[in-house]
Amino acid sequence: MRIFGKNTCLEILNSNKKINKVYLQKNVEENFKNKVLQKCKNTIFVDKDFLNKLTNFKVHQGVVMEIEDFKYCSLDDILNIHKENNTKAFILVLDGVVDPQNLGSLIRTAVCGGVDGIIISKNRSASVNDTVYKISVGAINYIKICEVTNINDTIKRLKKENIWVYGLEAGEKTIYETDLTYHTALVVGSEGNGISKLTKSLCDEIVSLPLKNKINSLNASVAGAVAIYEVVRQRHSRVV
Amino acid sequence: MRIFGKNTCLEILNSNKKINKVYLQKNVEENFKNKVLQKCKNTIFVDKDFLNKLTNFKVHQGVVMEIEDFKYCSLDDILNIHKENNTKAFILVLDGVVDPQNLGSLIRTAVCGGVDGIIISKNRSASVNDTVYKISVGAINYIKICEVTNINDTIKRLKKENIWVYGLEAGEKTIYETDLTYHTALVVGSEGNGISKLTKSLCDEIVSLPLKNKINSLNASVAGAVAIYEVVRQRHSRVV
Repeated sequence: MRIFGKNTCLEILNSNKKINKVYLQKNVEENFKNKVLQKCKNTIFVDKDFLNKLTNFKVHQGVVMEIEDFKYCSLDDILNIHKENNTKAFILVLDGVVDPQNLGSLIRTAVCGGVDGIIISKNRSASVNDTVYKISVGAINYIKICEVTNINDTIKRLKKENIWVYGLEAGEKTIYETDLTYHTALVVGSEGNGISKLTKSLCDEIVSLPLKNKINSLNASVAGAVAIYEVVRQRHSRVV
Repeated sequence: MRIFGKNTCLEILNSNKKINKVYLQKNVEENFKNKVLQKCKNTIFVDKDFLNKLTNFKVHQGVVMEIEDFKYCSLDDILNIHKENNTKAFILVLDGVVDPQNLGSLIRTAVCGGVDGIIISKNRSASVNDTVYKISVGAINYIKICEVTNINDTIKRLKKENIWVYGLEAGEKTIYETDLTYHTALVVGSEGNGISKLTKSLCDEIVSLPLKNKINSLNASVAGAVAIYEVVRQRHSRVV
């Protein structure tokens, strides 16, 4: 997989990820160049034009890295985290988030909020690509992501594991009236149509964010972020 | 100003904004075409190529509208809202948010959360442009935005008006330990450097969001959104 942009590449440098090759623009800033050369022997210096073509004219800031493809984990890998740490499960389920920008943003927020792992539906959702890497600003290196073919079977499994599954959608009960301090999975639906009908019916509860004025919904990554931080708040305030 | 994209243009159709001209792609979907033609006599049918050039190859989805430029309001316009409605002030101050995507996202969240108005620094921040319109998904039609040349003078003025000014930055006190039910202004800093030093020193308090793991900050629009909804939550729970 090719990733690009200074911040994204710096995060990769600081992670344990295998870097197969680095393309650096000849006149790239000295400080940045040194950081790359210290860690990557396989660096090739190229023209800006070369990088433009390699990234299809995206904002590469003079650096492109070829790294190993993102490795998805299993559902059990995610479920083992709270068991091993003896904490309350905190899982994000994405039911059809198709915009890589939203996926990248949710990954970054999930890492900041301490989410155990993210479950995404294989056929209905964006996968991890270069945009997701860039938008997540490297956060993707610090979280487990599992792709599942049947999100409904997965939700049934979560419930069997005593995890409360909350669908984030318009509804009467707000998330602020919901106790999120037990094992929790938050389901965020697609940008256009929200959570699919069957999936919604499988959730233990539908919880909403209060909306004022004439705009009828928050962006999926924003709604997810606010919900993630409501979990953080509730658990934080019990600790402090 | 030129805006584009179906959702953005539909929001404009539903607002009271003056539409000077509409460019519709000849084979645009019938249902959408009828909605436009019902309201806009000044519609011209053009080829996809024409729209590609007009938008510089952005995702126009077959529609471009020429609308009147965004009208900024005065600081007093924003301050009058809570006075007239006899509510607690709820103001968002952006100190150097330069990414139009972040500005658009914050506008949408601010409208959903019931923010009175947004204050942005004229020289250090993104202004309202086509990207901001698109990302806000029309929310921009429902909120007052004021541009100021000196954000520090503005903060002094807010404090004189008995509004508590909270800077959102890393710090010891979390936003969850802060009472946001009084007149409140939230200051969100720039994507790279946060709130500028002088501005930070003028804030009544610095409040933070708890961050876990190795990623050291949330995206500016996400941090702003979580803070906006913490105000909503605190005020909501006092009402219900």
